[in-house]
Amino acid sequence: MIGLSSCAGVMEDLMNFAEEQQPSSPLANSWSKKQESNKNQKKKGVGGFVLVHAGAGYHSESKAKEYKHVCKRACQRAMDQLKAGALAVEAVAAALVELEDSPFTNAGMGSNLNLSGEIECDASIMDGKSLHYGAVGAISGIKNPILVANRLLSEAQKGKLSAGRIPPCFLVGRGAHDWAVSHGIPPCPSDKMATKFSLSAYTRNKRKMELAEKMDTGHNQTKKRRQSSENENGSGCLDTVGAVVVDLDGNVAAAVSSGGLAMKHPGRIGQAAHYGCGCWAENACNMNPYSTAVSTSGCGEHLIRTMLARECSAAMQSEDAHQALLEAMQNKFISSPFLATEDRVLGGIIVLRCCRCLEAQPSKNIQGILVEFLWSHTTESMCVGYMSAQDSKAKNPSSDVLRDIKPDRGRAACSLWN
Amino acid sequence: MIGLSSCAGVMEDLMNFAEEQQPSSPLANSWSKKQESNKNQKKKGVGGFVLVHAGAGYHSESKAKEYKHVCKRACQRAMDQLKAGALAVEAVAAALVELEDSPFTNAGMGSNLNLSGEIECDASIMDGKSLHYGAVGAISGIKNPILVANRLLSEAQKGKLSAGRIPPCFLVGRGAHDWAVSHGIPPCPSDKMATKFSLSAYTRNKRKMELAEKMDTGHNQTKKRRQSSENENGSGCLDTVGAVVVDLDGNVAAAVSSGGLAMKHPGRIGQAAHYGCGCWAENACNMNPYSTAVSTSGCGEHLIRTMLARECSAAMQSEDAHQALLEAMQNKFISSPFLATEDRVLGGIIVLRCCRCLEAQPSKNIQGILVEFLWSHTTESMCVGYMSAQDSKAKNPSSDVLRDIKPDRGRAACSLWN
Repeated sequence: MIGLSSCAGVMEDLMNFAEEQQPSSPLANSWSKKQESNKNQKKKGVGGFVLVHAGAGYHSESKAKEYKHVCKRACQRAMDQLKAGALAVEAVAAALVELEDSPFTNAGMGSNLNLSGEIECDASIMDGKSLHYGAVGAISGIKNPILVANRLLSEAQKGKLSAGRIPPCFLVGRGAHDWAVSHGIPPCPSDKMATKFSLSAYTRNKRKMELAEKMDTGHNQTKKRRQSSENENGSGCLDTVGAVVVDLDGNVAAAVSSGGLAMKHPGRIGQAAHYGCGCWAENACNMNPYSTAVSTSGCGEHLIRTMLARECSAAMQSEDAHQALLEAMQNKFISSPFLATEDRVLGGIIVLRCCRCLEAQPSKNIQGILVEFLWSHTTESMCVGYMSAQDSKAKNPSSDVLRDIKPDRGRAACSLWN
Repeated sequence: MIGLSSCAGVMEDLMNFAEEQQPSSPLANSWSKKQESNKNQKKKGVGGFVLVHAGAGYHSESKAKEYKHVCKRACQRAMDQLKAGALAVEAVAAALVELEDSPFTNAGMGSNLNLSGEIECDASIMDGKSLHYGAVGAISGIKNPILVANRLLSEAQKGKLSAGRIPPCFLVGRGAHDWAVSHGIPPCPSDKMATKFSLSAYTRNKRKMELAEKMDTGHNQTKKRRQSSENENGSGCLDTVGAVVVDLDGNVAAAVSSGGLAMKHPGRIGQAAHYGCGCWAENACNMNPYSTAVSTSGCGEHLIRTMLARECSAAMQSEDAHQALLEAMQNKFISSPFLATEDRVLGGIIVLRCCRCLEAQPSKNIQGILVEFLWSHTTESMCVGYMSAQDSKAKNPSSDVLRDIKPDRGRAACSLWN
C-alpha cells in the first residue's frame, strides 16, 4: 500500500513544466529590488515579492499541471494586491485564498476527509510587522479558513473586547465557524467542499484501513501497530499550502492552510493551526538584521513537535541563508531529538528573508530591499511558485532543483532561486 | 468594574496560612536529594520532587484556604505516585487530577463558563524523557481533561495507527471528547462540572458585559473598545493550574490545565493546550546540562504569543537559575516585542530544574540529584505548593515571597524556595 494519500503519484511531470533555468551559481540566490519609499511609488506598485507552496509530499503526476498553475495564480493574486498598495499580510491572505480554492490542493475546497468523512481545516497567518497571529483549527463549513484566521488577527489588533475581554487569537471547531459567520464570512455547505476525488480517496482509504485493522487482530495488534510499514504512511496526504510575502515597505507576512492528514481523527489539529509550527513572520528589529517569513508543509505532528517554522525563522539570522536553512533542517528537524523515534521525518518549508540596504546616494533616501527566498524538504517533492514585482508572470522552478532530495531521513534538499 | 473573574479578592489571607520560613539567603535556593539509583530504592520511594500552582491571578480571599489545601493535596498525590515507583509523567498527571477536581480552581470541575454558558477546557502534558506531548483544547463533558492529554501522549508513544497513520498529539472539541470516551475515559454531564459559584459568576459577568456593550454604542464603539479600562481585565479569571515533577531517575514532566478566560468565545484555545506555551519538559542531554520543567498561568493569548514555557525552559540552562528566570520574564514576557501594544502583561510560571551530581565516592555509583525550583509572576498573586520525598507533608510558601511583586508592567517577582 502506498499510503492514505489523496494525491498519489510522482512529481516528474511537474518538473517538466518548469520554465526557469537553474541558477548558474549559488551566489545568484537573491532578488534585489530598488525602490523609493514614498507613497506615490507605492501606488505605482513598484515592489514586493511572493513565494508560495502547494505542499511537500508526493504530488500526483496526473495533477502536476494544476499544482503548477495554482501556485502561479496564487503568486499573481498576491502581487496584484501588493501593486494596489496592500500590506504583506493582506497579500499573503489573497494568495492563500487562491490556493484554498483549488480543488486539487489539500486546503479549503477539496481537502482531505477525516475518519468520519468530514472536512475539518486548519489555517494560520502571521504579520511580521505587528507580530500578531490568527489561527483556526478543525473548522468545518467555511470555504476559506485563512480568511477566518486573518480576521482573528485583524480583530485582535483592534484591542480589547467589551468589558475588557482579551480577543482570541486561536479558535477551533464549531466555535470558530460561528465566530466566522458572525463576522460576515459566509458559511459553505460541507458537501460543496468535498470533491469527487476527495470522496473517492476517502472510500479507498477507509477500505485500506479496515483491511489493515482486520490483519491486526488479537494479541499481535500492538506489535503489528509498532511495525507498520514506512510505506504505509503516504506522504501524498501532506499537501498543505502556504505563502510568504514581503511588501513595498519591507514588511513580511506568512500563512498556511491545510485539510490535514487523510483519515485523521475528528478534532485533530495539525501544524497549520499551531503557533510557531505552521508559519512565522518577523520584521527586522534591533536584535535581528533580517526580516523573515516561513511557511511549512508535511506531517503536522513532526512539524509541531519541532516547531519548525519558528526554529527556521530564528536560524535565518545567520549570514549565509542557504547554509543556515540546510543546518536548521538537519539539526532542528531531521536529527531533532524530538523526533528520535520516528522512522521518517516528513516536511518541507519555504523561506523568505530580506533586509534593507541603503543605496550609494543615501541623501536621496533611496533604499533597496534585498530579498532571498529558499525552500527545503525531506519529502519526495515540493511544489512552489514565486513572483517579483518586476516579473510579468509568476514562475515555477526548474526540475533539477527538486531532484536533489532525499525523501528519507538524511540530508534535506535546499533550493535557492533567483 | 474589577473584571470578569470568577475568583475576585486578594490573596492576603492565603499568605497568612504559610507555614514556611523565607530562605535566609538567595543561596538557599535549592533542594538536594541524594539517592542510589537502584530498583530497590525506587520501591522504597526515596526520591522525587513536585511543585504545583493553582494559578497566577487575583485569588479570592474567601477561598484562600482551599487554594492552599488543594495545592498541598496535589503535591501529596504526585508524591504518592513517585514513592510507588511512577515516572514523572504519571505523577504530574496525578497532581493535575487533584487540582482539576477542586471546584475552586479554574480547571476541570468548576471551570469558568464561556460566552454560551458552557465549560470548555484546555490541558496539556509533556514528558521530558521521551519529549512527547499530548494536548486537548475546548473539550467539554470530560471531568479530567489532563487524563485525555496524558492518554494522547501515551498512545502516540506506541507508534503508528493502522494503515500507517500518525497518531494525533492535539485534539479539540467534540472530536477530543469522542476520542476520550472511545479510550475508556468516562464522559461527565456538563451540568455536573459547573458549580454554584461558576454559574453565579457567569450571570454576573454576562450582566456586566451587556452593560459595557450598551455603553459602547454608535460611532464611539471602536474608540471605546480600544480604551477599555485596564482594571476591566480581571486577572481573577486566570487561575489555570499546573505542576512540574522530577522522579527518582531524574526524569522531568510538566502539565497544565485550564477552563480558560471567563466569557471566552466558544472554541477559544488558550495557552494550556498550546505546545510550548502552557508547559514544557526536557530531560538533560548532551547540549543541556539541566533537566527543566515549566508550567505557566495567566492570560492565554499573552502566553501563547511569547511562547513563555519554552522560552523560560531554554533560559534555565544558564548557571544562575534565579537570575535566568528574572531575565527571561523581563525580556521574553514583560518587555517582549510580541506584547508591545498590551497595556498589562499577565502571567506566572513555575519552574523546576535539576542536574545529576556524582558524590565524592563515584565507585559506589551513588548519585545526587540537585533540584532547584522557582516561580515568578506579574499578577497580583500566585498560589503554589511543593513537596520533596523527605517531607512528611506538602508546603506552601511564606507570605513575604508573594508580596515582592509588581502586578503591572515592570519587574516580575521571582521566588526561590528551599
